[in-house]
Amino acid sequence: MALQSIKYERGSLLVLDQLLLPAHKEYIDVKHTRDGWEIIKKMQVRGAPAIAIAGCLSLAVELTNKEFETLPELASFIKDQLQYLVTSRPTAVNMLNATKTLSASVDELVATNTLTVDIVKERIIEEIECMMYQDISVNKSMGWFGAEHILERFHDQSVNILTHCNAGALATAGYGTALGIIRTLHERNRIKRVYFTETRPYNQGSRLTAYELVHDNIPATLICDSHAAILMKLHDISAVVVGADRVVANGDTANKVGTYQLSIVARHHEVPFYVSCPSSTFDPTMETGEEIVIEERPHIEMTETKGIRIAAPGINCWNPAFDVTPAELITGGIVTEFGVFKPGELKEQLARFTI
Amino acid sequence: MALQSIKYERGSLLVLDQLLLPAHKEYIDVKHTRDGWEIIKKMQVRGAPAIAIAGCLSLAVELTNKEFETLPELASFIKDQLQYLVTSRPTAVNMLNATKTLSASVDELVATNTLTVDIVKERIIEEIECMMYQDISVNKSMGWFGAEHILERFHDQSVNILTHCNAGALATAGYGTALGIIRTLHERNRIKRVYFTETRPYNQGSRLTAYELVHDNIPATLICDSHAAILMKLHDISAVVVGADRVVANGDTANKVGTYQLSIVARHHEVPFYVSCPSSTFDPTMETGEEIVIEERPHIEMTETKGIRIAAPGINCWNPAFDVTPAELITGGIVTEFGVFKPGELKEQLARFTI
Repeated sequence: MALQSIKYERGSLLVLDQLLLPAHKEYIDVKHTRDGWEIIKKMQVRGAPAIAIAGCLSLAVELTNKEFETLPELASFIKDQLQYLVTSRPTAVNMLNATKTLSASVDELVATNTLTVDIVKERIIEEIECMMYQDISVNKSMGWFGAEHILERFHDQSVNILTHCNAGALATAGYGTALGIIRTLHERNRIKRVYFTETRPYNQGSRLTAYELVHDNIPATLICDSHAAILMKLHDISAVVVGADRVVANGDTANKVGTYQLSIVARHHEVPFYVSCPSSTFDPTMETGEEIVIEERPHIEMTETKGIRIAAPGINCWNPAFDVTPAELITGGIVTEFGVFKPGELKEQLARFTI
Repeated sequence: MALQSIKYERGSLLVLDQLLLPAHKEYIDVKHTRDGWEIIKKMQVRGAPAIAIAGCLSLAVELTNKEFETLPELASFIKDQLQYLVTSRPTAVNMLNATKTLSASVDELVATNTLTVDIVKERIIEEIECMMYQDISVNKSMGWFGAEHILERFHDQSVNILTHCNAGALATAGYGTALGIIRTLHERNRIKRVYFTETRPYNQGSRLTAYELVHDNIPATLICDSHAAILMKLHDISAVVVGADRVVANGDTANKVGTYQLSIVARHHEVPFYVSCPSSTFDPTMETGEEIVIEERPHIEMTETKGIRIAAPGINCWNPAFDVTPAELITGGIVTEFGVFKPGELKEQLARFTI
């Protein structure tokens, strides 16, 4: 059975607590946007697409169970809650993009001057539900395009893929972005082995990606973040495939910290480097990666593991959660639901597809 | 007071258990080479120079407390025990070099045909003790040469140094190789900040280097292994300085896994990369780094932290303990007790100094 991180039906949202994985599989009952904000902030749910979906669904649940008297009341409630959800984590753009889309929809619906409060509410809830259903099909498209691109490069031979962090079913509504490509390759029997990094300090690799790969029975090997260079030197790595939290106009890409380092190491070894992300991760309002705000997380994530002190007491830490990979190091391409594009062409290409 | 990882007096050896740091400061009573082999294998003592010194001192203690009837009996005992100690860990060369030196001394002393069993035993014990005393002065020389070289490059301005793993007092008889340079720079008031990596999976950085830097009150910041690239991009890193486990004829250098990755990232950012190691780390019997045997360590080091399971059950791991940095990426130079040399010149230069 496919791994389900988000279980939703109208009026009810259960989100898998990723902090407890792999030891425990427990779902959190999310009743309103305050819960949504909390589970994002605490990283009980993480991954740019999953953050947006869980956040918006928390609003859908709250809308379902709440009565509104007037359209302005409903509209300002929705927009306020969306703005609030955006503040949970600053780097991923998907929640912000969803906020913009939904806020525009609210304005349009209200502007018709003919719809009732209940109809507008219903339409917004449906739009949020659509985001969830679409995310999986978008991931499958990306899986198809990414697998095609990689297999063409390797003449349909089996490949070894290296990935970082968790850009899988747990980071999306299902299937995954980077792991979506890996799943497609595996379905076609073209995966020799997947290598993936621990992804310190939060261990999204050793905890979450390992969990998904074991779950799906894909041949996989865990490495430390610092093993990537010797891995590329000694093993035959065909490509690096990672997810993204924000891709800006020139193709610079923010993703989990360590991605930039991997891209440098990949270029040194002439290994093609792919970013896989839905078009909802694109942020044309920023010209270059230098504008992206990089979230810094608490030191305790580095000094302790599950409540056990690792680092020597009294030491200072630096804990950026993301870094920016410059477009020129994304040598394989950016895989979207519309195709694989060169980073510099992404803006123009996406403009052809999105309204 | 200086940090003491090895407490020795004739007939007694206490070695700080580095597995228990930073939580507990406990010494292990090492009575014979079997104990010496165990503490090296288990990584209760680690670091190429410290392994050689602790190993040889374990032999010195055993020799002190043991009676021998004949010279051949003594000679074969010493040589057998040294060979045994070499098998504890394969990558660092210092223990092997010490074995060659001491075995040659035994042969020479026996060949005189005039010395008694007790005198030969005494001479070998003294030679081992000398190794320990010399190691600290060798480290201080390296500190001097390394600091001079770096400060000349930066016109005597204060610097930010990045280091990896622990090449400090805990990895040597005292003072340290890479941390020796950092200590000298700090004594001269030329350290703005030391950045150092966690060094997964064994956390020699977060546990040991952090412990040393806090102990010595040197301004320092812990980063994850995957933070190095963004650190070099955003912060003004003057140089990377690391230790070594084996430097071969062409200057290729084995050191803690992740060093190779750091060297690639350093070159990308045009940050000079230094290796600091005593001449006892040099292995002219190997032409290139491809001949170096890389130790692989148990998976449990990656899947558990202090007995707590981190990685998802059922996942395969790859855990090489070292990697090889090619000579051309050691852009700053190799710092020895005789000066700072280009990797390609090291063999010729060391030949001028060593007998």
